[in-house]
Amino acid sequence: MPEHRERLRVRWVDTDASGRIHFTAAFRYFEIAEFELLRAVGVPYARTAEVDFPRVNVAATFKRQLTVDDIIEVRIRPARVGGRSVTYRCEVYHEGELAIEGQVTAVAVGPDGKSRSLPEALRRALTS
Amino acid sequence: MPEHRERLRVRWVDTDASGRIHFTAAFRYFEIAEFELLRAVGVPYARTAEVDFPRVNVAATFKRQLTVDDIIEVRIRPARVGGRSVTYRCEVYHEGELAIEGQVTAVAVGPDGKSRSLPEALRRALTS
Amino acid sequence: MPEHRERLRVRWVDTDASGRIHFTAAFRYFEIAEFELLRAVGVPYARTAEVDFPRVNVAATFKRQLTVDDIIEVRIRPARVGGRSVTYRCEVYHEGELAIEGQVTAVAVGPDGKSRSLPEALRRALTS
Amino acid sequence: MPEHRERLRVRWVDTDASGRIHFTAAFRYFEIAEFELLRAVGVPYARTAEVDFPRVNVAATFKRQLTVDDIIEVRIRPARVGGRSVTYRCEVYHEGELAIEGQVTAVAVGPDGKSRSLPEALRRALTS
Repeated sequence: MPEHRERLRVRWVDTDASGRIHFTAAFRYFEIAEFELLRAVGVPYARTAEVDFPRVNVAATFKRQLTVDDIIEVRIRPARVGGRSVTYRCEVYHEGELAIEGQVTAVAVGPDGKSRSLPEALRRALTS
Repeated sequence: MPEHRERLRVRWVDTDASGRIHFTAAFRYFEIAEFELLRAVGVPYARTAEVDFPRVNVAATFKRQLTVDDIIEVRIRPARVGGRSVTYRCEVYHEGELAIEGQVTAVAVGPDGKSRSLPEALRRALTS
Repeated sequence: MPEHRERLRVRWVDTDASGRIHFTAAFRYFEIAEFELLRAVGVPYARTAEVDFPRVNVAATFKRQLTVDDIIEVRIRPARVGGRSVTYRCEVYHEGELAIEGQVTAVAVGPDGKSRSLPEALRRALTS
Repeated sequence: MPEHRERLRVRWVDTDASGRIHFTAAFRYFEIAEFELLRAVGVPYARTAEVDFPRVNVAATFKRQLTVDDIIEVRIRPARVGGRSVTYRCEVYHEGELAIEGQVTAVAVGPDGKSRSLPEALRRALTS
Protein backbone atom coordinates (compact mmCIF):
# COMPACT_ATOMS: atom_id res chain seq x y z
CA MET A 1 0.00 0.00 0.00
CA PRO A 2 1.22 3.50 -0.80
CA GLU A 3 2.71 5.75 1.86
CA HIS A 4 2.96 9.49 1.54
CA ARG A 5 5.20 11.84 3.51
CA GLU A 6 4.24 15.49 3.75
CA ARG A 7 6.53 18.12 5.21
CA LEU A 8 4.70 20.93 6.99
CA ARG A 9 5.47 23.72 9.40
CA VAL A 10 3.54 24.31 12.61
CA ARG A 11 1.88 27.71 12.32
CA TRP A 12 1.13 30.37 14.92
CA VAL A 13 -2.60 29.86 14.48
CA ASP A 14 -2.13 26.20 15.43
CA THR A 15 -1.05 27.20 18.95
CA ASP A 16 -3.15 27.92 22.03
CA ALA A 17 -2.48 29.64 25.33
CA SER A 18 -0.47 26.64 26.54
CA GLY A 19 2.23 27.73 24.08
CA ARG A 20 1.91 24.44 22.21
CA ILE A 21 -0.38 23.37 19.39
CA HIS A 22 -4.04 22.94 20.15
CA PHE A 23 -4.65 19.22 19.80
CA THR A 24 -7.10 19.69 16.94
CA ALA A 25 -4.18 20.84 14.76
CA ALA A 26 -3.15 17.18 14.57
CA PHE A 27 -6.25 16.37 12.57
CA ARG A 28 -5.62 19.23 10.19
CA TYR A 29 -2.13 17.82 9.56
CA PHE A 30 -3.60 14.35 8.99
CA GLU A 31 -6.11 15.75 6.53
CA ILE A 32 -3.54 17.69 4.52
CA ALA A 33 -1.48 14.50 4.26
CA GLU A 34 -4.55 12.53 3.15
CA PHE A 35 -5.28 15.00 0.36
CA GLU A 36 -1.66 14.91 -0.77
CA LEU A 37 -1.55 11.10 -0.64
CA LEU A 38 -4.65 10.93 -2.85
CA ARG A 39 -3.16 13.47 -5.25
CA ALA A 40 0.09 11.47 -5.35
CA VAL A 41 -1.67 8.23 -6.26
CA GLY A 42 -3.71 9.91 -8.97
CA VAL A 43 -7.15 10.08 -7.38
CA PRO A 44 -7.40 13.59 -5.91
CA TYR A 45 -10.03 13.97 -3.21
CA ALA A 46 -13.27 14.83 -4.93
CA ARG A 47 -16.62 14.96 -3.32
CA THR A 48 -19.18 14.62 -6.09
CA ALA A 49 -22.92 14.29 -6.47
CA GLU A 50 -22.44 10.51 -6.36
CA VAL A 51 -20.10 10.09 -3.44
CA ASP A 52 -18.98 11.85 -0.32
CA PHE A 53 -16.48 10.73 2.32
CA PRO A 54 -17.48 11.75 5.83
CA ARG A 55 -15.23 10.69 8.68
CA VAL A 56 -16.78 8.13 10.99
CA ASN A 57 -13.91 7.51 13.35
CA VAL A 58 -10.88 9.57 14.28
CA ALA A 59 -8.29 9.24 17.02
CA ALA A 60 -4.93 10.69 18.00
CA THR A 61 -2.32 10.02 20.64
CA PHE A 62 0.17 12.71 21.58
CA LYS A 63 3.72 11.67 22.48
CA ARG A 64 5.65 14.92 22.26
CA GLN A 65 4.75 18.57 22.28
CA LEU A 66 4.88 20.65 19.14
CA THR A 67 5.07 24.41 18.94
CA VAL A 68 5.17 27.23 16.43
CA ASP A 69 7.72 26.97 13.61
CA ASP A 70 8.45 23.29 14.24
CA ILE A 71 8.99 21.48 10.97
CA ILE A 72 7.07 18.23 10.93
CA GLU A 73 6.75 15.26 8.63
CA VAL A 74 3.35 13.64 8.38
CA ARG A 75 3.42 10.03 7.22
CA ILE A 76 0.16 8.55 6.04
CA ARG A 77 -0.83 5.21 4.57
CA PRO A 78 -4.11 3.39 4.06
CA ALA A 79 -3.99 0.81 6.84
CA ARG A 80 -7.25 -0.85 5.85
CA VAL A 81 -9.18 -0.49 2.63
CA GLY A 82 -12.61 -2.06 3.00
CA GLY A 83 -15.49 -2.30 0.61
CA ARG A 84 -17.08 0.92 1.81
CA SER A 85 -14.47 2.63 3.93
CA VAL A 86 -10.79 3.38 4.24
CA THR A 87 -8.75 3.78 7.40
CA TYR A 88 -5.64 5.88 7.23
CA ARG A 89 -2.80 5.46 9.67
CA CYS A 90 -1.08 8.79 10.40
CA GLU A 91 2.14 9.67 12.19
CA VAL A 92 3.68 13.08 12.79
CA TYR A 93 7.43 13.22 13.28
CA HIS A 94 9.51 16.12 14.53
CA GLU A 95 13.30 15.94 14.53
CA GLY A 96 13.15 12.21 13.95
CA GLU A 97 10.89 11.52 16.93
CA LEU A 98 7.28 10.41 16.80
CA ALA A 99 5.17 13.28 18.16
CA ILE A 100 1.62 12.22 17.25
CA GLU A 101 0.05 9.07 15.92
CA GLY A 102 -3.53 8.45 14.98
CA GLN A 103 -6.02 7.16 12.52
CA VAL A 104 -8.92 8.39 10.48
CA THR A 105 -11.68 6.27 8.96
CA ALA A 106 -13.72 7.74 6.11
CA VAL A 107 -16.74 5.98 4.68
CA ALA A 108 -18.12 6.37 1.17
CA VAL A 109 -21.65 7.73 1.22
CA GLY A 110 -24.06 8.10 -1.67
CA PRO A 111 -26.57 10.85 -2.43
CA ASP A 112 -29.14 9.06 -0.25
CA GLY A 113 -26.87 9.49 2.77
CA LYS A 114 -26.21 5.76 3.00
CA SER A 115 -22.88 3.99 2.77
CA ARG A 116 -21.93 2.70 -0.64
CA SER A 117 -18.95 0.94 -2.17
CA LEU A 118 -15.71 2.87 -2.55
CA PRO A 119 -15.18 4.20 -6.06
CA GLU A 120 -13.15 1.53 -7.86
CA ALA A 121 -10.36 3.91 -8.97
CA LEU A 122 -9.85 4.97 -5.36
CA ARG A 123 -9.88 1.42 -4.03
CA ARG A 124 -7.37 0.32 -6.64
CA ALA A 125 -5.06 3.29 -6.09
CA LEU A 126 -5.01 2.71 -2.35
CA THR A 127 -4.34 -1.02 -2.54
CA SER A 128 -1.75 -1.33 -5.28
CA MET B 1 -32.26 49.87 12.24
CA PRO B 2 -32.23 46.83 14.51
CA GLU B 3 -29.38 46.14 16.90
CA HIS B 4 -28.63 42.75 18.37
CA ARG B 5 -26.54 41.96 21.44
CA GLU B 6 -25.07 38.50 21.80
CA ARG B 7 -23.37 37.30 24.97
CA LEU B 8 -20.55 34.85 24.37
CA ARG B 9 -17.65 33.40 26.25
CA VAL B 10 -14.08 33.39 24.93
CA ARG B 11 -13.03 29.76 24.49
CA TRP B 12 -9.67 28.05 24.94
CA VAL B 13 -9.51 27.26 21.23
CA ASP B 14 -9.78 31.00 20.52
CA THR B 15 -6.40 31.62 22.18
CA ASP B 16 -2.91 31.39 20.74
CA ALA B 17 0.56 31.16 22.24
CA SER B 18 0.43 34.84 23.23
CA GLY B 19 -2.08 33.83 25.90
CA ARG B 20 -4.73 36.05 24.31
CA ILE B 21 -7.22 35.38 21.55
CA HIS B 22 -5.93 34.96 18.04
CA PHE B 23 -7.23 38.00 16.19
CA THR B 24 -9.28 35.91 13.79
CA ALA B 25 -11.55 34.98 16.73
CA ALA B 26 -13.01 38.49 16.45
CA PHE B 27 -14.50 37.65 13.07
CA ARG B 28 -16.03 34.47 14.42
CA TYR B 29 -17.70 36.54 17.14
CA PHE B 30 -18.95 39.02 14.56
CA GLU B 31 -20.37 36.19 12.45
CA ILE B 32 -22.19 34.53 15.33
CA ALA B 33 -23.76 37.89 16.15
CA GLU B 34 -24.77 38.38 12.51
CA PHE B 35 -26.53 35.02 12.41
CA GLU B 36 -28.33 35.78 15.68
CA LEU B 37 -29.32 39.26 14.49
CA LEU B 38 -30.84 37.76 11.34
CA ARG B 39 -32.64 35.12 13.38
CA ALA B 40 -33.95 37.81 15.73
CA VAL B 41 -35.39 39.90 12.90
CA GLY B 42 -37.06 36.90 11.31
CA VAL B 43 -34.84 36.28 8.29
CA PRO B 44 -32.40 33.55 9.37
CA TYR B 45 -29.25 33.36 7.29
CA ALA B 46 -29.98 31.07 4.40
CA ARG B 47 -27.77 30.50 1.45
CA THR B 48 -29.98 29.15 -1.33
CA ALA B 49 -29.71 28.22 -4.98
CA GLU B 50 -30.79 31.79 -5.78
CA VAL B 51 -28.63 33.83 -3.48
CA ASP B 52 -25.41 33.62 -1.54
CA PHE B 53 -23.74 36.25 0.65
CA PRO B 54 -19.96 36.24 0.38
CA ARG B 55 -18.06 38.80 2.38
CA VAL B 56 -16.32 41.43 0.27
CA ASN B 57 -14.85 43.62 2.98
CA VAL B 58 -13.97 42.95 6.59
CA ALA B 59 -12.00 44.93 9.16
CA ALA B 60 -11.32 44.95 12.87
CA THR B 61 -9.55 47.20 15.34
CA PHE B 62 -8.37 45.81 18.66
CA LYS B 63 -8.53 48.09 21.71
CA ARG B 64 -8.17 45.67 24.62
CA GLN B 65 -6.92 42.15 25.01
CA LEU B 66 -9.29 39.27 25.55
CA THR B 67 -8.42 35.89 26.97
CA VAL B 68 -9.98 32.54 27.79
CA ASP B 69 -13.18 32.56 29.84
CA ASP B 70 -13.81 36.28 29.33
CA ILE B 71 -17.50 36.96 28.94
CA ILE B 72 -18.11 39.29 26.03
CA GLU B 73 -21.05 41.06 24.51
CA VAL B 74 -21.10 41.47 20.75
CA ARG B 75 -23.25 44.32 19.50
CA ILE B 76 -24.14 44.30 15.84
CA ARG B 77 -26.29 46.49 13.66
CA PRO B 78 -26.67 47.02 9.92
CA ALA B 79 -24.82 50.29 9.41
CA ARG B 80 -25.60 50.50 5.72
CA VAL B 81 -28.14 48.53 3.72
CA GLY B 82 -27.57 49.06 0.01
CA GLY B 83 -29.32 47.61 -2.99
CA ARG B 84 -26.96 44.68 -3.27
CA SER B 85 -24.97 44.63 -0.06
CA VAL B 86 -25.18 45.14 3.66
CA THR B 87 -22.51 46.44 6.00
CA TYR B 88 -22.67 45.40 9.62
CA ARG B 89 -21.06 47.43 12.36
CA CYS B 90 -19.75 45.21 15.17
CA GLU B 91 -18.45 45.94 18.63
CA VAL B 92 -17.19 43.55 21.28
CA TYR B 93 -17.44 44.68 24.89
CA HIS B 94 -15.81 43.12 27.93
CA GLU B 95 -16.62 44.35 31.43
CA GLY B 96 -18.20 47.47 29.96
CA GLU B 97 -15.18 48.43 27.89
CA LEU B 98 -14.92 48.33 24.12
CA ALA B 99 -12.40 45.61 23.24
CA ILE B 100 -12.86 45.22 19.48
CA GLU B 101 -14.72 47.14 16.81
CA GLY B 102 -15.09 46.34 13.17
CA GLN B 103 -17.26 45.93 10.17
CA VAL B 104 -18.25 43.30 7.69
CA THR B 105 -19.76 43.87 4.24
CA ALA B 106 -21.60 41.02 2.56
CA VAL B 107 -22.86 41.21 -0.98
CA ALA B 108 -25.78 39.28 -2.46
CA VAL B 109 -24.63 37.07 -5.31
CA GLY B 110 -26.78 35.06 -7.70
CA PRO B 111 -26.19 31.61 -9.18
CA ASP B 112 -24.17 33.19 -11.99
CA GLY B 113 -21.65 34.49 -9.45
CA LYS B 114 -22.66 38.09 -10.09
CA SER B 115 -24.03 40.56 -7.58
CA ARG B 116 -27.81 40.85 -7.43
CA SER B 117 -30.31 42.78 -5.36
CA LEU B 118 -30.74 41.86 -1.70
CA PRO B 119 -33.77 39.65 -1.09
CA GLU B 120 -36.61 42.00 -0.25
CA ALA B 121 -37.49 40.32 3.06
CA LEU B 122 -33.91 40.74 4.23
CA ARG B 123 -33.70 44.35 3.11
CA ARG B 124 -36.95 45.18 4.87
CA ALA B 125 -36.03 43.39 8.09
CA LEU B 126 -32.69 45.19 8.26
CA THR B 127 -34.09 48.66 7.61
CA SER B 128 -37.27 48.77 9.69
CA MET C 1 -19.26 11.26 39.23
CA PRO C 2 -20.61 14.57 37.98
CA GLU C 3 -22.15 14.98 34.56
CA HIS C 4 -22.52 18.28 32.78
CA ARG C 5 -24.81 19.12 29.88
CA GLU C 6 -23.99 22.08 27.68
CA ARG C 7 -26.32 23.42 25.05
CA LEU C 8 -24.56 24.87 22.02
CA ARG C 9 -25.39 25.87 18.49
CA VAL C 10 -23.45 24.69 15.46
CA ARG C 11 -21.89 27.74 13.84
CA TRP C 12 -21.22 28.59 10.21
CA VAL C 13 -17.49 28.53 10.83
CA ASP C 14 -17.82 24.92 12.01
CA THR C 15 -18.90 23.81 8.53
CA ASP C 16 -16.80 22.82 5.55
CA ALA C 17 -17.48 22.45 1.82
CA SER C 18 -19.38 19.20 2.46
CA GLY C 19 -22.14 21.36 3.95
CA ARG C 20 -21.75 19.63 7.32
CA ILE C 21 -19.44 20.35 10.24
CA HIS C 22 -15.75 19.69 9.80
CA PHE C 23 -15.05 16.77 12.10
CA THR C 24 -12.63 18.79 14.23
CA ALA C 25 -15.61 20.85 15.45
CA ALA C 26 -16.53 17.86 17.62
CA PHE C 27 -13.42 18.34 19.70
CA ARG C 28 -14.17 22.03 20.16
CA TYR C 29 -17.61 21.08 21.47
CA PHE C 30 -16.06 18.51 23.83
CA GLU C 31 -13.60 21.12 25.12
CA ILE C 32 -16.24 23.75 25.77
CA ALA C 33 -18.21 21.15 27.74
CA GLU C 34 -15.08 20.19 29.72
CA PHE C 35 -14.47 23.81 30.71
CA GLU C 36 -18.10 24.23 31.75
CA LEU C 37 -18.08 20.96 33.71
CA LEU C 38 -15.01 22.11 35.62
CA ARG C 39 -16.59 25.49 36.27
CA ALA C 40 -19.78 23.80 37.47
CA VAL C 41 -17.93 21.61 39.97
CA GLY C 42 -15.96 24.55 41.34
CA VAL C 43 -12.52 23.93 39.87
CA PRO C 44 -12.36 26.08 36.73
CA TYR C 45 -9.72 25.02 34.23
CA ALA C 46 -6.53 26.79 35.20
CA ARG C 47 -3.16 26.14 33.71
CA THR C 48 -0.62 27.43 36.23
CA ALA C 49 3.13 27.46 36.70
CA GLU C 50 2.76 24.21 38.65
CA VAL C 51 0.47 22.21 36.45
CA ASP C 52 -0.69 21.96 32.88
CA PHE C 53 -3.11 19.51 31.30
CA PRO C 54 -2.11 18.48 27.78
CA ARG C 55 -4.30 15.98 25.98
CA VAL C 56 -2.64 12.61 25.41
CA ASN C 57 -5.48 10.73 23.78
CA VAL C 58 -8.57 11.87 21.91
CA ALA C 59 -11.11 10.02 19.81
CA ALA C 60 -14.50 10.60 18.25
CA THR C 61 -17.07 8.53 16.40
CA PHE C 62 -19.64 10.20 14.18
CA LYS C 63 -23.14 8.73 14.01
CA ARG C 64 -25.18 11.51 12.45
CA GLN C 65 -24.40 14.59 10.45
CA LEU C 66 -24.62 18.04 11.97
CA THR C 67 -24.92 21.28 10.11
CA VAL C 68 -25.15 25.02 10.70
CA ASP C 69 -27.73 26.25 13.20
CA ASP C 70 -28.32 22.80 14.68
CA ILE C 71 -28.83 23.03 18.42
CA ILE C 72 -26.81 20.40 20.19
CA GLU C 73 -26.41 19.17 23.74
CA VAL C 74 -22.97 18.04 24.79
CA ARG C 75 -22.94 15.63 27.73
CA ILE C 76 -19.63 15.14 29.49
CA ARG C 77 -18.56 13.16 32.53
CA PRO C 78 -15.24 12.00 33.91
CA ALA C 79 -15.25 8.33 32.96
CA ARG C 80 -11.95 7.57 34.67
CA VAL C 81 -10.06 9.70 37.18
CA GLY C 82 -6.58 8.27 37.68
CA GLY C 83 -3.70 9.45 39.81
CA ARG C 84 -2.23 11.56 37.04
CA SER C 85 -4.86 11.76 34.36
CA VAL C 86 -8.55 12.10 33.71
CA THR C 87 -10.57 10.67 30.86
CA TYR C 88 -13.77 12.43 29.89
CA ARG C 89 -16.56 10.67 28.08
CA CYS C 90 -18.38 13.00 25.69
CA GLU C 91 -21.60 12.69 23.74
CA VAL C 92 -23.24 15.17 21.39
CA TYR C 93 -26.99 14.90 20.95
CA HIS C 94 -29.15 16.58 18.35
CA GLU C 95 -32.94 16.34 18.47
CA GLY C 96 -32.68 13.52 20.96
CA GLU C 97 -30.37 11.40 18.83
CA LEU C 98 -26.72 10.64 19.50
CA ALA C 99 -24.70 12.37 16.79
CA ILE C 100 -21.12 12.09 18.10
CA GLU C 101 -19.47 10.20 20.92
CA GLY C 102 -15.88 10.31 22.01
CA GLN C 103 -13.36 10.65 24.75
CA VAL C 104 -10.52 12.87 25.77
CA THR C 105 -7.71 12.01 28.17
CA ALA C 106 -5.74 14.84 29.75
CA VAL C 107 -2.67 14.23 31.88
CA ALA C 108 -1.35 16.52 34.62
CA VAL C 109 2.15 17.74 33.79
CA GLY C 110 4.52 19.69 36.01
CA PRO C 111 6.92 22.50 35.12
CA ASP C 112 9.57 19.89 34.25
CA GLY C 113 7.31 18.55 31.51
CA LYS C 114 6.79 15.26 33.34
CA SER C 115 3.50 13.81 34.51
CA ARG C 116 2.55 14.57 38.10
CA SER C 117 -0.39 13.80 40.34
CA LEU C 118 -3.69 15.52 39.64
CA PRO C 119 -4.31 18.52 41.89
CA GLU C 120 -6.25 17.20 44.88
CA ALA C 121 -9.12 19.70 44.53
CA LEU C 122 -9.64 18.63 40.92
CA ARG C 123 -9.48 14.92 41.73
CA ARG C 124 -11.98 15.35 44.54
CA ALA C 125 -14.38 17.47 42.50
CA LEU C 126 -14.36 14.95 39.66
CA THR C 127 -14.93 11.89 41.85
CA SER C 128 -17.54 13.05 44.34
CA MET D 1 11.52 47.44 1.56
CA PRO D 2 11.58 43.67 1.31
CA GLU D 3 8.78 41.70 -0.29
CA HIS D 4 8.15 38.03 0.31
CA ARG D 5 6.11 35.65 -1.82
CA GLU D 6 4.77 32.49 -0.24
CA ARG D 7 3.14 29.73 -2.24
CA LEU D 8 0.39 27.91 -0.36
CA ARG D 9 -2.45 25.58 -1.12
CA VAL D 10 -6.03 26.18 0.02
CA ARG D 11 -6.96 23.34 2.38
CA TRP D 12 -10.24 21.55 2.96
CA VAL D 13 -10.41 22.89 6.49
CA ASP D 14 -10.29 26.43 5.07
CA THR D 15 -13.66 25.94 3.37
CA ASP D 16 -17.16 26.43 4.73
CA ALA D 17 -20.61 25.31 3.63
CA SER D 18 -20.59 27.87 0.81
CA GLY D 19 -18.02 25.64 -0.91
CA ARG D 20 -15.46 28.44 -0.81
CA ILE D 21 -12.96 29.47 1.84
CA HIS D 22 -14.29 30.98 5.03
CA PHE D 23 -13.11 34.57 4.93
CA THR D 24 -10.99 34.18 8.06
CA ALA D 25 -8.67 31.89 6.08
CA ALA D 26 -7.34 35.03 4.40
CA PHE D 27 -5.84 36.20 7.66
CA ARG D 28 -4.20 32.84 8.24
CA TYR D 29 -2.57 33.14 4.83
CA PHE D 30 -1.43 36.68 5.63
CA GLU D 31 0.05 35.50 8.93
CA ILE D 32 1.95 32.59 7.39
CA ALA D 33 3.43 35.02 4.86
CA GLU D 34 4.39 37.45 7.64
CA PHE D 35 6.26 34.74 9.53
CA GLU D 36 8.06 33.65 6.36
CA LEU D 37 8.93 37.25 5.45
CA LEU D 38 10.46 37.75 8.90
CA ARG D 39 12.36 34.48 8.61
CA ALA D 40 13.62 35.49 5.17
CA VAL D 41 14.97 38.83 6.39
CA GLY D 42 16.71 37.21 9.35
CA VAL D 43 14.49 38.28 12.22
CA PRO D 44 12.14 35.33 12.82
CA TYR D 45 8.98 36.21 14.71
CA ALA D 46 9.77 35.89 18.38
CA ARG D 47 7.54 36.93 21.16
CA THR D 48 9.76 37.36 24.23
CA ALA D 49 9.48 38.58 27.80
CA GLU D 50 10.45 42.04 26.53
CA VAL D 51 8.26 42.41 23.50
CA ASP D 52 5.06 41.10 22.01
CA PHE D 53 3.33 42.06 18.77
CA PRO D 54 -0.46 42.09 19.03
CA ARG D 55 -2.43 43.08 15.98
CA VAL D 56 -4.26 46.38 16.34
CA ASN D 57 -5.79 46.69 12.91
CA VAL D 58 -6.60 44.16 10.22
CA ALA D 59 -8.61 44.35 7.02
CA ALA D 60 -9.25 42.33 3.91
CA THR D 61 -11.09 42.82 0.63
CA PHE D 62 -12.18 39.83 -1.41
CA LYS D 63 -12.08 40.07 -5.20
CA ARG D 64 -12.34 36.46 -6.32
CA GLN D 65 -13.47 33.26 -4.72
CA LEU D 66 -11.00 30.61 -3.63
CA THR D 67 -11.74 26.98 -2.98
CA VAL D 68 -10.06 23.78 -1.88
CA ASP D 69 -6.85 22.78 -3.66
CA ASP D 70 -6.36 26.19 -5.25
CA ILE D 71 -2.69 27.09 -5.31
CA ILE D 72 -2.19 30.64 -4.15
CA GLU D 73 0.70 33.06 -3.87
CA VAL D 74 0.69 35.43 -0.92
CA ARG D 75 2.73 38.58 -1.44
CA ILE D 76 3.60 40.58 1.65
CA ARG D 77 5.66 43.68 2.26
CA PRO D 78 5.98 46.15 5.10
CA ALA D 79 4.03 49.12 3.78
CA ARG D 80 4.77 51.32 6.77
CA VAL D 81 7.37 50.83 9.49
CA GLY D 82 6.75 53.27 12.30
CA GLY D 83 8.52 53.75 15.59
CA ARG D 84 6.24 51.37 17.44
CA SER D 85 4.29 49.52 14.80
CA VAL D 86 4.51 47.94 11.40
CA THR D 87 1.82 47.67 8.76
CA TYR D 88 2.04 44.84 6.27
CA ARG D 89 0.39 44.98 2.90
CA CYS D 90 -0.83 41.57 1.76
CA GLU D 91 -2.12 40.26 -1.54
CA VAL D 92 -3.27 36.77 -2.47
CA TYR D 93 -3.04 35.77 -6.11
CA HIS D 94 -4.57 32.75 -7.79
CA GLU D 95 -3.79 31.92 -11.43
CA GLY D 96 -2.31 35.36 -11.90
CA GLU D 97 -5.38 37.22 -10.64
CA LEU D 98 -5.68 39.17 -7.42
CA ALA D 99 -8.12 37.29 -5.18
CA ILE D 100 -7.67 39.03 -1.81
CA GLU D 101 -5.90 42.15 -0.62
CA GLY D 102 -5.54 43.45 2.86
CA GLN D 103 -3.37 44.81 5.58
CA VAL D 104 -2.32 43.99 9.09
CA THR D 105 -0.85 46.39 11.65
CA ALA D 106 1.05 44.95 14.59
CA VAL D 107 2.27 47.10 17.46
CA ALA D 108 5.25 46.37 19.71
CA VAL D 109 4.15 46.01 23.31
CA GLY D 110 6.34 45.71 26.40
CA PRO D 111 5.85 43.58 29.52
CA ASP D 112 3.74 46.39 31.04
CA GLY D 113 1.23 46.01 28.21
CA LYS D 114 2.10 49.42 26.80
CA SER D 115 3.40 50.16 23.34
CA ARG D 116 7.16 50.42 23.03
CA SER D 117 9.63 51.01 20.22
CA LEU D 118 10.12 48.27 17.63
CA PRO D 119 13.22 46.17 18.28
CA GLU D 120 16.00 47.80 16.28
CA ALA D 121 16.96 44.62 14.40
CA LEU D 122 13.38 44.22 13.24
CA ARG D 123 13.04 47.85 12.21
CA ARG D 124 16.27 47.69 10.27
CA ALA D 125 15.44 44.41 8.54
CA LEU D 126 12.05 45.72 7.44
CA THR D 127 13.33 49.03 6.09
CA SER D 128 16.51 48.08 4.27
